[in-house]
Amino acid sequence: MSVLRSRRHVLLPGLFALAIGANVATTVPAQAQPQGQRARTPNDTLKSVEVSPDHKVTFRIYAPKASEVSVNGDFKGGGKMTKDEQGVWSLTTGPLRPDFYTYGFNVDGVRTVDPKNAMIKQGIANVDSMLLVPGEESEFEATKDVPHGEVRQAWYRSATLGEPRRLHVYTPPGYDQGTEKYPVFYLLHGAGDDDSGWSTIGRAGFIMDNLIASGKARPMIVVMPNGSLPRPTNFPRTAPGTAPSPEARAAMEAIQNRFTDELLKDVAPFVEGHYRVLPGVENRALAGLSMGGGQTLRLITTNPDRFAYVGIWSAGLFGGNPDEWEKRNAAFLDQAKAFNGTVKLLSIRVGDGDFALAGTKNLDEVLSRHDVKHELTINDGGHTWINWRKYLSEFAPRLFR
Amino acid sequence: MSVLRSRRHVLLPGLFALAIGANVATTVPAQAQPQGQRARTPNDTLKSVEVSPDHKVTFRIYAPKASEVSVNGDFKGGGKMTKDEQGVWSLTTGPLRPDFYTYGFNVDGVRTVDPKNAMIKQGIANVDSMLLVPGEESEFEATKDVPHGEVRQAWYRSATLGEPRRLHVYTPPGYDQGTEKYPVFYLLHGAGDDDSGWSTIGRAGFIMDNLIASGKARPMIVVMPNGSLPRPTNFPRTAPGTAPSPEARAAMEAIQNRFTDELLKDVAPFVEGHYRVLPGVENRALAGLSMGGGQTLRLITTNPDRFAYVGIWSAGLFGGNPDEWEKRNAAFLDQAKAFNGTVKLLSIRVGDGDFALAGTKNLDEVLSRHDVKHELTINDGGHTWINWRKYLSEFAPRLFR
Repeated sequence: MSVLRSRRHVLLPGLFALAIGANVATTVPAQAQPQGQRARTPNDTLKSVEVSPDHKVTFRIYAPKASEVSVNGDFKGGGKMTKDEQGVWSLTTGPLRPDFYTYGFNVDGVRTVDPKNAMIKQGIANVDSMLLVPGEESEFEATKDVPHGEVRQAWYRSATLGEPRRLHVYTPPGYDQGTEKYPVFYLLHGAGDDDSGWSTIGRAGFIMDNLIASGKARPMIVVMPNGSLPRPTNFPRTAPGTAPSPEARAAMEAIQNRFTDELLKDVAPFVEGHYRVLPGVENRALAGLSMGGGQTLRLITTNPDRFAYVGIWSAGLFGGNPDEWEKRNAAFLDQAKAFNGTVKLLSIRVGDGDFALAGTKNLDEVLSRHDVKHELTINDGGHTWINWRKYLSEFAPRLFR
Repeated sequence: MSVLRSRRHVLLPGLFALAIGANVATTVPAQAQPQGQRARTPNDTLKSVEVSPDHKVTFRIYAPKASEVSVNGDFKGGGKMTKDEQGVWSLTTGPLRPDFYTYGFNVDGVRTVDPKNAMIKQGIANVDSMLLVPGEESEFEATKDVPHGEVRQAWYRSATLGEPRRLHVYTPPGYDQGTEKYPVFYLLHGAGDDDSGWSTIGRAGFIMDNLIASGKARPMIVVMPNGSLPRPTNFPRTAPGTAPSPEARAAMEAIQNRFTDELLKDVAPFVEGHYRVLPGVENRALAGLSMGGGQTLRLITTNPDRFAYVGIWSAGLFGGNPDEWEKRNAAFLDQAKAFNGTVKLLSIRVGDGDFALAGTKNLDEVLSRHDVKHELTINDGGHTWINWRKYLSEFAPRLFR
């Protein structure tokens, strides 16, 4: 009972500190963090992150005993932080383009989120801190005073996987007040993420709210399933920084085929049975980033008549051999005419600093060789959510027109 | 462009490591974490947390340079961890009662979530890791293969606060397929949390799913608003471990009064306008824990005719003077008869190890003195979610009968 007893003695101040708004440094539950009358530390009033009016970002972390601390994220200007005499490490970037960013600290080899920042992006195996640099460029993804749709967590039973699975569903403003049916857009995340990614760092709901409010996009239902499938215990491991073995690639291939079943035989029927979606291929869109782009490509090559609007982002044939891919997908490529008749938009996008650039160009070449109608757009930037949010904001307005 | 360039070079392996299921140690975005051909470390395959069949929990963190590492949470057996020759710190608890728990590490004074565990509970100023010890006792809150309702994130415009605000809403299984109306239960979180708390560590949706599936609770809508109101910049600070000043108490009082307006003038009208809720006091329940229990108490004393079922958990008159409270609430206390006629259940609960025990007993005494009909139940345990989930699972079945 010692923990309970200590709680009884130390928690009253702890809770009041919370209740009346003292700065809370701990990431440990207040009720489990004995505080007593301890001396104050710089951590009590430490602020991180801080964004200046000129869009510079200052990161701070209290680590008096650490010998090396760095901050890194999907922005320029991260790196080693400097320590002051009080044990507070800090780093200030140059002006960052207004946008959302993810980052984390590395404290003497221990990677951690920012203990002072509760904005969190969760993955299947990692957690990042998030920050917003507000400004004109990030207006499209900001939480604005416009009519908001709902982002729903729903559960369905997957026959393919034999377990209950969660997905996120965006329903447009007014969905519950009306009876009309909507087109449906299946939006896939990348490796390491789950069905929450597009609703945290992906900002999908806010991007759609803003597009719909300004009349730039049609109201639609956006379905964000979990593309990270459970792996067999004997799944071949690949060490970080090493290339996957042929066995590992084959195992990944099998998992990707399962996802095709998962989406078409489990997710889509659940969605069509539980939400007011318009029938017909012309009311169905599909897009994905990175691994989700690979899943999207596999879905349309194996089921070319299911989706009229398709986006493949930061993926292409990454890793794969184009000739081999061309052979494997001969059946699809031979149907180019039929596919071109069904698909109103096949948009392929990648950044010029994205490792998927080469694979994307390979895909473009093979599709062109077989007259598969598509667009290729190469823009600035790397393999980051900065691009994927931008792609969503430019793709959604073109859907269901 | 150095970051982008380094990305182009290092990310392919990084992404494949993710894509094909290598253990991902980092909490930093894969694309921002140069990995190159770096040497492997014990962190690559480190597992945390690990729950043994006999319900012991092992925590591990790779911190080769740290001199002191501890783990603490809302369970017994946390504390200082021990380091092995590879730089991995670990601690194994004794058998824990099957339940959900929150915890965090302290690495040389830096508090961090578990970098190896993506189960996260978010607050307004803190982030905790979560773990589940599966077993018979945690079945009531587990994700089971039963019909699931939805947990929705919705946004409304608060006139009281003059900003868009988010709330979480649980709709029961089948809500979208039917047209019937449901009773509504307003469920409030505690200090330091936001509207997501009851849906992460609170497990509200799963608890309701399981109760409804077993016929123990009526299908109902559960509304979980954000009770942590924005504070004026001149809000009096209270250092952790110190008692609040009279000014700080007064400021908190003003904020609590604003929450009464927020719930009755903004949240409830939004809910009644957007969800199929049954009208009438007999179809309205309200409960809250800790700060939310204080908000609940304030709501019913100022609006005694609005809710027929009320729960006050781990709150009571904590901190307050009973005689002073009795004076301030004379108007309410004098209406005991009318209140007793309206309210079918006023359930007051607290743990015997909870710092709110004394304040709860004070509330019980004052209410008894004025013949305000209520129940007082004191059970084991402290000021923890372990109790609050239990209270929800025992309160919900008694609603709207």
